[in-house]
Amino acid sequence: MWRRRDVVSARDFDRRDLEDLFETAKYMEKYAKSRVEFLKGRVMAVAFFEPSTRTRLSFETAMKRLGGEVVGFWGAEGTSVEKGETLADTVRMLDAYSDLIVIRHRYEGAAKLAAEVAENPVVNGGDGASNHPTQAMLDLYTIWREFGYIDGLNIGVVGDLRHARTVNSLLEALTNFNVKVFLISPEYLRPRTETVDYIRSRGLRHSFHTSLEEVLRELDVLYVVRIQKERFLDPLEYERVRGSYRISLDMLKNAKRHLAILHPLPRVDEIDHKVDSTPHAKYFKQAALGVPLRMALIYLILMGP
Amino acid sequence: MWRRRDVVSARDFDRRDLEDLFETAKYMEKYAKSRVEFLKGRVMAVAFFEPSTRTRLSFETAMKRLGGEVVGFWGAEGTSVEKGETLADTVRMLDAYSDLIVIRHRYEGAAKLAAEVAENPVVNGGDGASNHPTQAMLDLYTIWREFGYIDGLNIGVVGDLRHARTVNSLLEALTNFNVKVFLISPEYLRPRTETVDYIRSRGLRHSFHTSLEEVLRELDVLYVVRIQKERFLDPLEYERVRGSYRISLDMLKNAKRHLAILHPLPRVDEIDHKVDSTPHAKYFKQAALGVPLRMALIYLILMGP
Amino acid sequence: MWRRRDVVSARDFDRRDLEDLFETAKYMEKYAKSRVEFLKGRVMAVAFFEPSTRTRLSFETAMKRLGGEVVGFWGAEGTSVEKGETLADTVRMLDAYSDLIVIRHRYEGAAKLAAEVAENPVVNGGDGASNHPTQAMLDLYTIWREFGYIDGLNIGVVGDLRHARTVNSLLEALTNFNVKVFLISPEYLRPRTETVDYIRSRGLRHSFHTSLEEVLRELDVLYVVRIQKERFLDPLEYERVRGSYRISLDMLKNAKRHLAILHPLPRVDEIDHKVDSTPHAKYFKQAALGVPLRMALIYLILMGP
Repeated sequence: MWRRRDVVSARDFDRRDLEDLFETAKYMEKYAKSRVEFLKGRVMAVAFFEPSTRTRLSFETAMKRLGGEVVGFWGAEGTSVEKGETLADTVRMLDAYSDLIVIRHRYEGAAKLAAEVAENPVVNGGDGASNHPTQAMLDLYTIWREFGYIDGLNIGVVGDLRHARTVNSLLEALTNFNVKVFLISPEYLRPRTETVDYIRSRGLRHSFHTSLEEVLRELDVLYVVRIQKERFLDPLEYERVRGSYRISLDMLKNAKRHLAILHPLPRVDEIDHKVDSTPHAKYFKQAALGVPLRMALIYLILMGP
Repeated sequence: MWRRRDVVSARDFDRRDLEDLFETAKYMEKYAKSRVEFLKGRVMAVAFFEPSTRTRLSFETAMKRLGGEVVGFWGAEGTSVEKGETLADTVRMLDAYSDLIVIRHRYEGAAKLAAEVAENPVVNGGDGASNHPTQAMLDLYTIWREFGYIDGLNIGVVGDLRHARTVNSLLEALTNFNVKVFLISPEYLRPRTETVDYIRSRGLRHSFHTSLEEVLRELDVLYVVRIQKERFLDPLEYERVRGSYRISLDMLKNAKRHLAILHPLPRVDEIDHKVDSTPHAKYFKQAALGVPLRMALIYLILMGP
Repeated sequence: MWRRRDVVSARDFDRRDLEDLFETAKYMEKYAKSRVEFLKGRVMAVAFFEPSTRTRLSFETAMKRLGGEVVGFWGAEGTSVEKGETLADTVRMLDAYSDLIVIRHRYEGAAKLAAEVAENPVVNGGDGASNHPTQAMLDLYTIWREFGYIDGLNIGVVGDLRHARTVNSLLEALTNFNVKVFLISPEYLRPRTETVDYIRSRGLRHSFHTSLEEVLRELDVLYVVRIQKERFLDPLEYERVRGSYRISLDMLKNAKRHLAILHPLPRVDEIDHKVDSTPHAKYFKQAALGVPLRMALIYLILMGP
């Protein structure tokens, strides 16, 4: 049941929720480039305190394709937050004006706080370093659309698994499926303890690796996230790791023919642009599916059963 | 008569105008969360040269709930103003594109200039230190909705009464009603001479006070505005004043049971958050009424008699 | 044939294309202040990496008057570009979300690159120092509306002809008509060699002048662009040139009675504000025509034959 639900953490949604979402998103795909009047007269507020293009624009496009309206702001400057207003007061205002709030904030827990304050549903567009639930839903939807199922797949996740909120939400969401996860990163960039504890407690099969090359051939899906230089004490170490995780045509020689490469985007140079033209590259399709996925999400929250 | 009128100063509107507006706003309340096609095909331009969230978003939401469209900018950067364009030229452009302009500017008189240049109506979303007419309309509407009338009420206004444009417009608008106004502030933060002269000339009963405690028990309405540190020569004096004007649960012990506390928002710490849950707290309702009030305002200007 | 065409350079459009556009724009004028459902359900993405008010707002207003929706960003901050995303990846995203992309970028060739990457049409809202095709279309449309024809006119262009992208696109577009162009500027601010070579190769009659006064009396149209101080080595030289090219009432004594003065706007002080009230001043009308012209452009690209 989705109606009037907040979307704060991927942990709040079970397999049934996700499958309902995927079915609805698939149905929405045929409207993703047209317009329907489903949400005529509804207003969605976007409160993006932190930079974002893809998430904000896919939500806005989704709302408008559904016939709804959007108000809001992106970047805190020029807003009452600059004047020292609390997040709670800002949320109360948006809640009074709109039917649904999508919030992005650099502080962990911002979305949870907003959901507690607001009477209307709140959707987390990414907060802190650990939650980006709608991205995780999109990631799984892309896999589901690609393979027709998720159970049984070998899913590799490579890069900075510690500070990427998309990875954390993805792993939490994956605990609803029977998959094997390969966590590929330097030791000190492994997912945080609480995340590992959570997926372990939920019985998600997972293994840790430092070498991508070693496991690549076993993977059905490879999820790539950025590694940021500032995370490294030693710049040479950074160059080494970055080099060994950079996806190139050469590296893909040993991959399964149906290997699907995903990336939340934006990418910098984690994936060689030459890879874009291979059948492995699914990250642009993934980005495109953001609109129908979010159409389904908004629709289910505002109109769903 | 509202049709095609500019809204530059609260002084331009008499009791009849305001009562028409309130009746229309009350009618609009039932549409404030739905959508009507009243203004289908109309475009409102927002030119916010100065930060604002509440005013801009309530105007935009109001226009969209009425079925209209919005174009514009907030913050001057990224606009032709940066390239040295005069305000008059910018206004001429917006006037050519849209049916109505809402402008906020830090310079006093900007809205008046815009109204002179534009053929279409211009609404002042706040300019300089002395005009924010639509906020004053919202303030009075909140009182009118709360009590069912305005005449006969004792209305306290506390804080920096000199530099707050909302206070100036509120006092000007109040001269249309038979109320008693308690002006509570340090002597050097009293309303400016021209404002006091104006309300005196219009026969608005008013008295000056430095202590909130002394008069609180007599008040039906308490309108709170911020006091900014930079207005004080002596930081200790600032702390003292700020402390004595800060609305707390304790202070409200002596208040009338029906005392309504208003605040234009955003607030910083002028009102203790504990007060939010008391029946005195009307500032969130006040913010929420901003949408129907501005729906009524836009509707009357574009479609009214 | 306009359907699904990219608009990257003025060179891509012949006389027939422009005349079709003008006829459609004239038809759109009657809708420019109302709303039609022609493009209901279509979404236009605006990607303005560089400041602009007039171009962006006229495109947005045009799309909304046509019943379509707009998503996007202006100013790169707060976008994924800040995170190091390539222009190509940003364009792929916008292409996946929307039906049409309008891009402005300070780098020459940005629009061409975007057009190559995107499956949907891309419109150049100005890139680099040499292309602003839709402004040129608007300039010619204004002349066409003013005189009823373009052939046979004497058209003067004065100011910095070297760095103004509007001038370059205007000259390229003018090669489709039988006009005489007077290029008035200091020698080192003449149009760039490739532009001069192009118009020469296309047989556009043109002559170079340093004095506006000398040729003013012969002109039917005077197109004015800014001269920026930073282009001059010698500030005194700048003052002299600026003074001699500044359009004043006095200077217009010798002008033809029907002389039409155009300016892409924003202007700083190239045209004395006293000139605004003369029948020569067509630059505000020119700005206003930006909406119907862009309505026609968007309509033809998305729905045209």
